[in-house]
Amino acid sequence: MPYTDAAAAKKLLDARPNADAIVTALKNLAIETPSWGYADTGTRFGKFHQPACARTMKEKLEDAGVVHKYAGICPTVATHVLWDFPNGPDATVIDYAKKCGIEIGAINPNVFQDQCYKFGSFGNPNETSRKQAVQHCLDCVELGKTMQSKYLSLWFADGTNYPGQDSIRARKHRFTEALKKVYAAMPTSMTMLIEYKPFEPAFYHTDIADWGMAYIFAKQAGPNAKVLVDTGHHYLSQNIEQIVAWLLDEDMLGGFHFNDRRYADDDLTLGSIDPYQIFRIFNEIISFEQERGKPATIAYMVDQSHCIKPKIEAMLQTVDITHQLFAKALLVDRKALRDAQARTDVVGAEETLRGAFLTDTRPLIGYVRQQMGLAPDALAEYRTSGHEARIAKEREAQHGSPSDAAYA
Amino acid sequence: MPYTDAAAAKKLLDARPNADAIVTALKNLAIETPSWGYADTGTRFGKFHQPACARTMKEKLEDAGVVHKYAGICPTVATHVLWDFPNGPDATVIDYAKKCGIEIGAINPNVFQDQCYKFGSFGNPNETSRKQAVQHCLDCVELGKTMQSKYLSLWFADGTNYPGQDSIRARKHRFTEALKKVYAAMPTSMTMLIEYKPFEPAFYHTDIADWGMAYIFAKQAGPNAKVLVDTGHHYLSQNIEQIVAWLLDEDMLGGFHFNDRRYADDDLTLGSIDPYQIFRIFNEIISFEQERGKPATIAYMVDQSHCIKPKIEAMLQTVDITHQLFAKALLVDRKALRDAQARTDVVGAEETLRGAFLTDTRPLIGYVRQQMGLAPDALAEYRTSGHEARIAKEREAQHGSPSDAAYA
Amino acid sequence: MPYTDAAAAKKLLDARPNADAIVTALKNLAIETPSWGYADTGTRFGKFHQPACARTMKEKLEDAGVVHKYAGICPTVATHVLWDFPNGPDATVIDYAKKCGIEIGAINPNVFQDQCYKFGSFGNPNETSRKQAVQHCLDCVELGKTMQSKYLSLWFADGTNYPGQDSIRARKHRFTEALKKVYAAMPTSMTMLIEYKPFEPAFYHTDIADWGMAYIFAKQAGPNAKVLVDTGHHYLSQNIEQIVAWLLDEDMLGGFHFNDRRYADDDLTLGSIDPYQIFRIFNEIISFEQERGKPATIAYMVDQSHCIKPKIEAMLQTVDITHQLFAKALLVDRKALRDAQARTDVVGAEETLRGAFLTDTRPLIGYVRQQMGLAPDALAEYRTSGHEARIAKEREAQHGSPSDAAYA
Amino acid sequence: MPYTDAAAAKKLLDARPNADAIVTALKNLAIETPSWGYADTGTRFGKFHQPACARTMKEKLEDAGVVHKYAGICPTVATHVLWDFPNGPDATVIDYAKKCGIEIGAINPNVFQDQCYKFGSFGNPNETSRKQAVQHCLDCVELGKTMQSKYLSLWFADGTNYPGQDSIRARKHRFTEALKKVYAAMPTSMTMLIEYKPFEPAFYHTDIADWGMAYIFAKQAGPNAKVLVDTGHHYLSQNIEQIVAWLLDEDMLGGFHFNDRRYADDDLTLGSIDPYQIFRIFNEIISFEQERGKPATIAYMVDQSHCIKPKIEAMLQTVDITHQLFAKALLVDRKALRDAQARTDVVGAEETLRGAFLTDTRPLIGYVRQQMGLAPDALAEYRTSGHEARIAKEREAQHGSPSDAAYA
Repeated sequence: MPYTDAAAAKKLLDARPNADAIVTALKNLAIETPSWGYADTGTRFGKFHQPACARTMKEKLEDAGVVHKYAGICPTVATHVLWDFPNGPDATVIDYAKKCGIEIGAINPNVFQDQCYKFGSFGNPNETSRKQAVQHCLDCVELGKTMQSKYLSLWFADGTNYPGQDSIRARKHRFTEALKKVYAAMPTSMTMLIEYKPFEPAFYHTDIADWGMAYIFAKQAGPNAKVLVDTGHHYLSQNIEQIVAWLLDEDMLGGFHFNDRRYADDDLTLGSIDPYQIFRIFNEIISFEQERGKPATIAYMVDQSHCIKPKIEAMLQTVDITHQLFAKALLVDRKALRDAQARTDVVGAEETLRGAFLTDTRPLIGYVRQQMGLAPDALAEYRTSGHEARIAKEREAQHGSPSDAAYA
Repeated sequence: MPYTDAAAAKKLLDARPNADAIVTALKNLAIETPSWGYADTGTRFGKFHQPACARTMKEKLEDAGVVHKYAGICPTVATHVLWDFPNGPDATVIDYAKKCGIEIGAINPNVFQDQCYKFGSFGNPNETSRKQAVQHCLDCVELGKTMQSKYLSLWFADGTNYPGQDSIRARKHRFTEALKKVYAAMPTSMTMLIEYKPFEPAFYHTDIADWGMAYIFAKQAGPNAKVLVDTGHHYLSQNIEQIVAWLLDEDMLGGFHFNDRRYADDDLTLGSIDPYQIFRIFNEIISFEQERGKPATIAYMVDQSHCIKPKIEAMLQTVDITHQLFAKALLVDRKALRDAQARTDVVGAEETLRGAFLTDTRPLIGYVRQQMGLAPDALAEYRTSGHEARIAKEREAQHGSPSDAAYA
Repeated sequence: MPYTDAAAAKKLLDARPNADAIVTALKNLAIETPSWGYADTGTRFGKFHQPACARTMKEKLEDAGVVHKYAGICPTVATHVLWDFPNGPDATVIDYAKKCGIEIGAINPNVFQDQCYKFGSFGNPNETSRKQAVQHCLDCVELGKTMQSKYLSLWFADGTNYPGQDSIRARKHRFTEALKKVYAAMPTSMTMLIEYKPFEPAFYHTDIADWGMAYIFAKQAGPNAKVLVDTGHHYLSQNIEQIVAWLLDEDMLGGFHFNDRRYADDDLTLGSIDPYQIFRIFNEIISFEQERGKPATIAYMVDQSHCIKPKIEAMLQTVDITHQLFAKALLVDRKALRDAQARTDVVGAEETLRGAFLTDTRPLIGYVRQQMGLAPDALAEYRTSGHEARIAKEREAQHGSPSDAAYA
Repeated sequence: MPYTDAAAAKKLLDARPNADAIVTALKNLAIETPSWGYADTGTRFGKFHQPACARTMKEKLEDAGVVHKYAGICPTVATHVLWDFPNGPDATVIDYAKKCGIEIGAINPNVFQDQCYKFGSFGNPNETSRKQAVQHCLDCVELGKTMQSKYLSLWFADGTNYPGQDSIRARKHRFTEALKKVYAAMPTSMTMLIEYKPFEPAFYHTDIADWGMAYIFAKQAGPNAKVLVDTGHHYLSQNIEQIVAWLLDEDMLGGFHFNDRRYADDDLTLGSIDPYQIFRIFNEIISFEQERGKPATIAYMVDQSHCIKPKIEAMLQTVDITHQLFAKALLVDRKALRDAQARTDVVGAEETLRGAFLTDTRPLIGYVRQQMGLAPDALAEYRTSGHEARIAKEREAQHGSPSDAAYA
């Protein structure tokens, strides 16, 4: 019901002088979903299989298309090269994506799964492993050109498990060299995103542990290298929105991997544990954009592992709460906030910000969706469509059950 | 060299009135190694295969036997029922274990891997899943009787990933009921160990999140139910030795799963990240035992995931540092410590405790091993024995390479 | 405006069959504010003084009265014996409290500030210090009788700073003995609340580090001893609502100290960092109460340190957001939630719970306040009343500026 | 006894080809102690007074002199301008320091205690407060010139307590501007040290939260601005030695504030909680220096709050363990380590590093002290000297007891 409460939406917009800009921003928000978010994923303790999960690249594209069809703001899909293009570039993929109503987004190399990466990829003391990793990334640049992708999105599982295992500084130097090689091969239309993560799967040290390290590597690589913020890749209690604010101010924010977590890199759906934090991140971005008077170039991407939720539902749910929280950030009264800040009115400033968070934006999202020709409550609409049961049946018929030994 | 420094060992022992008791305690220490610690393990990002890893129960028993042969203090091996007894109780295993110089230790049910456990085992809202989990544990009790095992060691992956997913209290009630059923089937010679873990693989809440919850479940089950402390299953900064001291004082400490970690449940080798903490845990135990004048009944078990270290080496390294840290705790001058505490001499008390930690106990361990007819430096001895290369060759010949698709 | 949106409030209530019960629950909610929350407080780096802060017990009562006058749900004030009754029981306080429209709530002993508590109070190895601490608590029981207080609220700064400093188990025994002595002196109308805290001001170990330890101490003391949950006294990432659910289920939840935090025990205003978490805590309580069909006996108390916010404003803000979050928890559709849980519909269950959180309850709070004869937006009403400036002027005239050396 | 075990020291050194360099490095290690470490300090819950604590700058210098007299490696003392020079530069201080056998080290401004800093210093939205803070730092530069100090050591309590309270980016800009002003006034012989801290006393965000932010500010200020690492100012589980390695590699490591902690910024004595971590930090430094073939310019400074330990004893204990851990790092067999790393021998590399940590270096420290004409066991020597009791008596006679109201 909240999504169809047109009166509430009207009241919200009527009260704002920039109502049109708000609606436009909500229509233009673009969130990329990941191809691997439609396949079965699990934890190190096992994987629970879903009959409706996508087994092929085509099915992943179809699922991404379905999400965009309902949510209206997911026009691209990120690809994971090793899993999506096991046989190299595939020209038919672009066409099939178009057929599904979407385009190919970021290219994600995989330099962690092959046995040669046991001791790392770009940081590996073994030169052969390093070369293989660099070559794979160069291949990904080529693939990205073919796919007309704007982003080469780099995450490294590199690190060590034990003190003394390798030289932290030597690995840093190897990384610098390899990143420069890959950067040199990129067309100017491509941006390199460098992701950081303080733990897992390397446990004692990870080679790009925090935003400061990603920042230095990006600066060394070149102007088209930026930092990628994965919301689950931080120490407990770390203030992520401050990092976002700094990266924006330094012109070094490239994009996001969205997910939520309680303890580690839990890869839960965004906003499921701490929605106020995600709102504050958006608040920093919108505050920056409104000051500059133009949008920042930021790749919003989802990176989640739906271990027990149905994949498409989980993605729609994610996109929905993201849309809501983004809307809340758009509703912040910037002038009132600045004024309260200037007079050090702590309570007044906080109430101004939190008041926007406390506002129910579901009616607004419903209104915007209707303006876009969509159903106001995307998730509910999908859940009643019968699509999930249909593809489960079709895919089982085609591939067999995912719990079959042969499939696993 | 430190292990063969007989003069240093003599100096250490000569300075202590209870030298004989120290040597005896070091000979009697018994650390159980896990069968699954000899097989290939990995992270959710993949598994790096080792040619020498154990593929069969027989090979696991052989490897555990090798560790005991070199270290002298690992007379038992913990078994993981699903992986080690896929076809149920196997009478030949006891004999083969004996042949390898060891015995079967704790029985570990597996109620997390089967697809029916997607939403939990003992806490699952689905009755069929709960029944299957309870039945598996009852089967394990039977297996334990056959294997003459003293411990039924229970770890549950149960929990929820999202707020609202299930009722925390309803799950608690289901757990109580199921634990009581399993407890009722145990012979009086068997002890139930209940393990706690605050995160992973359930991310929002785990049903037995901390020692307090394990304590309450154990109390409800019966007098032969105790708490199992896994050193990697705590919140960051939590004082583990305090929990150990409390459980000892309440007569509720059943045993340990040993491993180390920096961030999460990293399952690194014990003492690789924070050896002082492990020393302090042993200090609480030895202090308790010396006050009572008799050993506490505690199952010391290793539970690690050797992702990149060779399995047998990693286990020998673990047992060696455990032996060293245990020795350090035995060297604490209890009377001097009590006296300093009584006069609130903070610096004096701390120096007394830390002084024991700073003492190099490798000569003492070397001395004790020689008394037991073993080589003083177990790890070095093994590394130069050529055993690793030998079994790698033999096992590859027999099973094929572990990276073969067929094997994986 | 949201507080005066009567149409929105009506819509919310009309959609619920239990609308009357919701309104009643919102009127009956009682949150105790602390006398020390009206005085100047700071950090170890200093204190920033406010001219309007309360310097005397009378002023603290007046301020608590003002908060109740505006918020309508703060009928009692917690007292801190050492600071509020430096000269022992004071019969006039009850009368003055009544004059301010409130009553005296929990009695809080102080056994951490005196020099004799350098090494602890109930856990101190020095018997004289222990006796003084116990005597102070016995005096507090007497004071509580005089003041007709229902709660003796115990927090201990006890612990050690360095490994080895004292025996953890010996301290546990001393605590047990002292708590029993105090418990024995309590009238049956009095409940002992035992608070836990994992760190600060003792840094290596605190004697009551977590809920499990408080639980055991309470069980040992007697049936009228319960656990007090301070929302800031947990490890990072700890699931507080689970602890609340367990304590409710064990009939051991005595009450709360409300505050929020990012890193440590920051004592920020409730709901300022993670409002969703507080909502989930209320959700556990209301779910429990609705199942049992009667309210649980829980002391809701605020314990915050308003270092930079004006005291009364901060308290009104706290009570307002608490009221809102409590209302959100009341709006949860219990039947829909249970049904979704029963069919393991993770997305549906989560949406049901989070949907209540996303609902704007300010209109409902405004409606309830109006029903109670109060202004709908308590904080705004107070901020425009001029009261803050008035008392600042009066109190400075009477006591001098708080930054005067003589005052500090 | 370990400190006087000459045979053990000889054995250690004889086994190393670089024995002379090790002894020289141990003699040349210089650790600065802080003037405020000799005065009474406490927590926000109160302060426990010590009769022997230093009340005046003269007494602080005397105490620092005593520590150097016993430890031999503490030739300088850091000063805290507001507390040590309440009346501005004092020429007699240099002379008195010399008389005490020491020199003045780093100059530490205080821009957090004055009431004008309620909302920050360099980041304050109020221009007057910012100006006062900058002026105080400019005064400190002048003081530093007079005192011939090489370091201006900057720590800021700046930040916000609540989301929305102030603009993170606006504060960043104010900081940049202020830091540049102060930098411009420094003589080229002076280095600016910029300290980071993720929490406390600001709770929602601190303006210089991590090493990355300190790095960017230092880069903006100029080549003589470097990053200061306080070992207590990190997120839980953060790998500090990696940060040290990166800063060394970037030529941006300025110095350290040494202390230890379990949960927050506990300011415990170094190596009291996690000595292996401190060893690993030294290992990164020594590895860097040995590769470069010359010492790095790093200011090693102690910053601890001895709440319950006697001040001078605590400082001697700190310096002693620091000396020991530094010695362990010097004992690492670099060639063996590099070789093991190169052949990805994880176990061998770890054993090489940890083996040095497990070596008892007290005999070596005792030997070096004797070479320097000092008693081998500095702490024991001091504790039996009667100095503590003597100054307690003298200082109480002169100033009265520290618990007197007048003194407090």
